[in-house]
Amino acid sequence: VRVRVLGSAAGGGFPQWNCGCGNCLGVRAGTVRAVPRTQDSLAVTSDGERWAMLNCSPEVRAQIEAFPSLHPRAPRHTPITAIVLTNGDLDHCLGLFSLRESQPLTIFATDAVRAGLTESIFYRTLERFPGQVTWKRLVLDEEVDLGNGLRVRARAVAGKPPLHLAGRAPSAEDNVGLWIGDQRHRIAYVPGAADVAALSEPVDCLFFDGTFHSENELIELGLGTRPARDMAHIPVGASLAALAGVAARRRIFTHINNTNPILLDDSPERAALTSAGWEVAFDGMELSL
Amino acid sequence: VRVRVLGSAAGGGFPQWNCGCGNCLGVRAGTVRAVPRTQDSLAVTSDGERWAMLNCSPEVRAQIEAFPSLHPRAPRHTPITAIVLTNGDLDHCLGLFSLRESQPLTIFATDAVRAGLTESIFYRTLERFPGQVTWKRLVLDEEVDLGNGLRVRARAVAGKPPLHLAGRAPSAEDNVGLWIGDQRHRIAYVPGAADVAALSEPVDCLFFDGTFHSENELIELGLGTRPARDMAHIPVGASLAALAGVAARRRIFTHINNTNPILLDDSPERAALTSAGWEVAFDGMELSL
Repeated sequence: VRVRVLGSAAGGGFPQWNCGCGNCLGVRAGTVRAVPRTQDSLAVTSDGERWAMLNCSPEVRAQIEAFPSLHPRAPRHTPITAIVLTNGDLDHCLGLFSLRESQPLTIFATDAVRAGLTESIFYRTLERFPGQVTWKRLVLDEEVDLGNGLRVRARAVAGKPPLHLAGRAPSAEDNVGLWIGDQRHRIAYVPGAADVAALSEPVDCLFFDGTFHSENELIELGLGTRPARDMAHIPVGASLAALAGVAARRRIFTHINNTNPILLDDSPERAALTSAGWEVAFDGMELSL
Repeated sequence: VRVRVLGSAAGGGFPQWNCGCGNCLGVRAGTVRAVPRTQDSLAVTSDGERWAMLNCSPEVRAQIEAFPSLHPRAPRHTPITAIVLTNGDLDHCLGLFSLRESQPLTIFATDAVRAGLTESIFYRTLERFPGQVTWKRLVLDEEVDLGNGLRVRARAVAGKPPLHLAGRAPSAEDNVGLWIGDQRHRIAYVPGAADVAALSEPVDCLFFDGTFHSENELIELGLGTRPARDMAHIPVGASLAALAGVAARRRIFTHINNTNPILLDDSPERAALTSAGWEVAFDGMELSL
């Protein structure tokens, strides 16, 4: 099983277009030890030929071009044989509308996530011909064949419906984590989680929600009014302890907000998570399991 | 008046994610004399402080980061004081949903373009608080103040409704060109046009539809079934002659499709348009008028 981190930032990316916080100013000016990051997405393969893309960020075009394994091998072609969505947030789905050049797509999602996407009138751009999109249903706790030598199981993870569906009745299918692997190796990909309840199974590699470091990060910076858990993200400070007992050879935070001090290679917060056996994802990071 | 080309490619960009044509293969491999391009957008200012962004491409985040004049100058800030849309195509509008981090936006568009956008359920992500988006109406042939020392007049240009509204009754407001300037200088920005009927007024600089070079470009490459004009784009081969009589100090093709031979700096098609006094836009191109 090979994994490529296509993007490792939370919604808005790092730096964020309208943000002048210390991290964003510093990474633009080159005065902090941090690298820019695009928005959260992974690519996974077992044979190096057929790739599953986990989430589809607004920056998907640049992410594909930065990774030759995802380039086309014919006049019209893509090695991306499956796209798997963890929720309906625009930073995880908007990129689908950048993949609309008459290319057949196979998208795995829960019914709730599918409904939130297909309700947009923009979805008609993915219905240019019959069969342009083949939907495959993710049923909670059921293993599904991704068609590329890998299987996936989605589990409900504490979260929220996407902003554009705010006010709807919440569903356990709004936000899932993905357990993906072959007969020998397995990764867990949980980029958004308000708690760690779904996490217990041993995995080779765990990618987990690293959006915020502390509960009141945005409030203390004067950049927001809501605590982390109110936005359905358990802060790194809490998840480090809560996940200490979960068996994983590698543990990697991803979906990192631009304000998070773990973005800085030399911050005390980074040192603390390194001591605890964790890593921080970066764009272009690759793993072989 | 200063102009920055933020993006110069047609929908899909150059190279296009699923395209293995000669141009796309060559630019990825570095074996042709061409540079990659993001999707069509311009930024215009008269004072260097307040910028109008013309169209908002899916790649807007990277386009902003690549141009320091558009970076924030406070913890939450943007120098982009106006966004002006020429039509409702997703390659011109999808980027609005990447500018949703609680930043007030002022968007200038015709009623038809506004309706096509706000009809999407995704638009709720731009309605997080009252006044997040201020819409300013573009009425055909009426001059409007952009609020940054520049004025804009939209004119109807032969085009089509966006793909996601296909089948609706067409409107003269579906596709416009923009004439923008101050008391002394004026540019025209017409990135999509099925004919040249709207073009006659002398301008300092004309940006014009360079999507395709020939009428059957996609058909001859085996990459599509429709001629250029059926997709509402007059080919460069025809517009060069048709626009010969329009007075413009600089003439620049933009919105260039990945298949177009004018992308190659050393192609005969490029040499022919250079001889005719035209240029080809590239990302990062800047003009001072």
